[in-house]
Amino acid sequence: MHDLAPEELIRRTLAGERVPLARALSWVENEHAHATQLLDACFTRTGRAFRLGITGPPGAGKSTLVTKLAREYRERGLTVAVVAVDPTSPFSGGALLGDRVRMIELSGDDGVFIRSMATRGSMGGLAVHTSQVCDVLDAAGFDRILLETVGVGQSELEVAQTADTTAVVLVPESGDAVQAMKAGLMEIADVFVINKADREGADRAAQAIRSALHLRAMTSDWSIPVHMTIAARAEGVGELVNRFEEHLGWLTETGTLERRRRVRLEQRLEALVRERLWVQFRAQAPAGTWEAALAALADRRESPSALAERLLG
Amino acid sequence: MHDLAPEELIRRTLAGERVPLARALSWVENEHAHATQLLDACFTRTGRAFRLGITGPPGAGKSTLVTKLAREYRERGLTVAVVAVDPTSPFSGGALLGDRVRMIELSGDDGVFIRSMATRGSMGGLAVHTSQVCDVLDAAGFDRILLETVGVGQSELEVAQTADTTAVVLVPESGDAVQAMKAGLMEIADVFVINKADREGADRAAQAIRSALHLRAMTSDWSIPVHMTIAARAEGVGELVNRFEEHLGWLTETGTLERRRRVRLEQRLEALVRERLWVQFRAQAPAGTWEAALAALADRRESPSALAERLLG
Repeated sequence: MHDLAPEELIRRTLAGERVPLARALSWVENEHAHATQLLDACFTRTGRAFRLGITGPPGAGKSTLVTKLAREYRERGLTVAVVAVDPTSPFSGGALLGDRVRMIELSGDDGVFIRSMATRGSMGGLAVHTSQVCDVLDAAGFDRILLETVGVGQSELEVAQTADTTAVVLVPESGDAVQAMKAGLMEIADVFVINKADREGADRAAQAIRSALHLRAMTSDWSIPVHMTIAARAEGVGELVNRFEEHLGWLTETGTLERRRRVRLEQRLEALVRERLWVQFRAQAPAGTWEAALAALADRRESPSALAERLLG
Repeated sequence: MHDLAPEELIRRTLAGERVPLARALSWVENEHAHATQLLDACFTRTGRAFRLGITGPPGAGKSTLVTKLAREYRERGLTVAVVAVDPTSPFSGGALLGDRVRMIELSGDDGVFIRSMATRGSMGGLAVHTSQVCDVLDAAGFDRILLETVGVGQSELEVAQTADTTAVVLVPESGDAVQAMKAGLMEIADVFVINKADREGADRAAQAIRSALHLRAMTSDWSIPVHMTIAARAEGVGELVNRFEEHLGWLTETGTLERRRRVRLEQRLEALVRERLWVQFRAQAPAGTWEAALAALADRRESPSALAERLLG
């Protein structure tokens, strides 16, 4: 497809046409010259789709679970977009395989749209694009957006910045439950899922999580469920969707949804402004300023604080 | 101690007096009005101390290990500062206990200085202060700075921003080895330590790490050792110190030390400048500008990108 004029791409994307939609998402990820115009047109039409974050350590079967969730939502008459954020670390495993799992099972159904995004290692960059990709999918008319990320390190940032409901998916073994509690995943989960629950230790893991949840100070009146699934057999998936929908209902009724979305939007705006301020600063500083500062640092002539004050003084 | 004039505090801190040193560190953490003057004076005297990062999941016995490492270094005639970064999450466990372990065993020895820093939840703030605290301790004359952090989420940022050598400490059980490989800890470790190595699974865990290291593309000619310790019995600690000193020797001989320190200093300067740019922007914008932007966001009248461009246009 030759390069479209932005107005036409916008029109066709908002109309839900799949091929222009894919092109629009590429514009966003590659920061195309007309990406901002596209995003502006989409943003005013966002807010209808619910964004569900599915995160957790590698090997928990998230790709399989997301595939089954997509099929369940389709059976309920909703359209689904899947955004899979695949880290490029050689140690995470399974990322490329996930793509194939999803494609084979969901291909041919126009009510499901799948997009993979590769991390580039930068901490903030992917989070910005992920939110924007979800905005475009939202504006294109999807009812549910499943955002699948590997729950290590910075990925929680992407999830936290855009998901309305976040599910943390664990497996019974490898001390995943213990690690989840250690790793800060307790703070972001609205729903816990123990997948591959036919394996030994499933009940123990669920119990460990429930105990930890009891100890935690109650900051809201949403009672976080711990749900068992065997995604490979689609067991427990229908009930899991019920849990998601219950949470979305609670979010809406209590006004929490709007409140959290406002906070997230503010965080996105702040991140964008911070980034632009930095880019402007580097662009406007006289040639060689930064290099001279680095040299002073390396020689320990001036401290980072003193240099920062001088550069911006 | 009444509030000192900055010049006197600086003089006495650089002379190595312990009480003024503690006061100086408080100035840094609380961003005292004269903190910058203090940091400038210290920075020009940094670069002599080696900074060793000790990180890993909670429960690995890091506090005990750090205590034994400090004693071993003292027996080799070196002075040691311990900086313990304690997350305040109720799930991490052991943080407060660690303080008491260290105090009891190392108290009375003027050649050891211990400082605890509590995280405040903000992603970047602690990393900035941790580096600055290490600068002051470096300038005060300590030979080795042991930086102990809990290896979850953003803590790797603090370690990466300031440690010359990073050790990742694991325990044999709970699938720690597997989790370490998943969680990105492979990328930051110069040395692996399997602590509590008298427990079952120690050899298996060490083997799993060694296998993963073999698979990893070799990016440098430092061969990452996997070392066993039983810190509670001070077993393996002397050998571990030998590994640290070998790494520091390798860093120095290959010029890697200077190269990495330059990179880290650049990252610190960038972080400081970015933060000041943001603070300046908020301070200089006309009253109500930000609030109006947030309102436009909440009503979805303008997208984050469009607002960012308009605010900085």
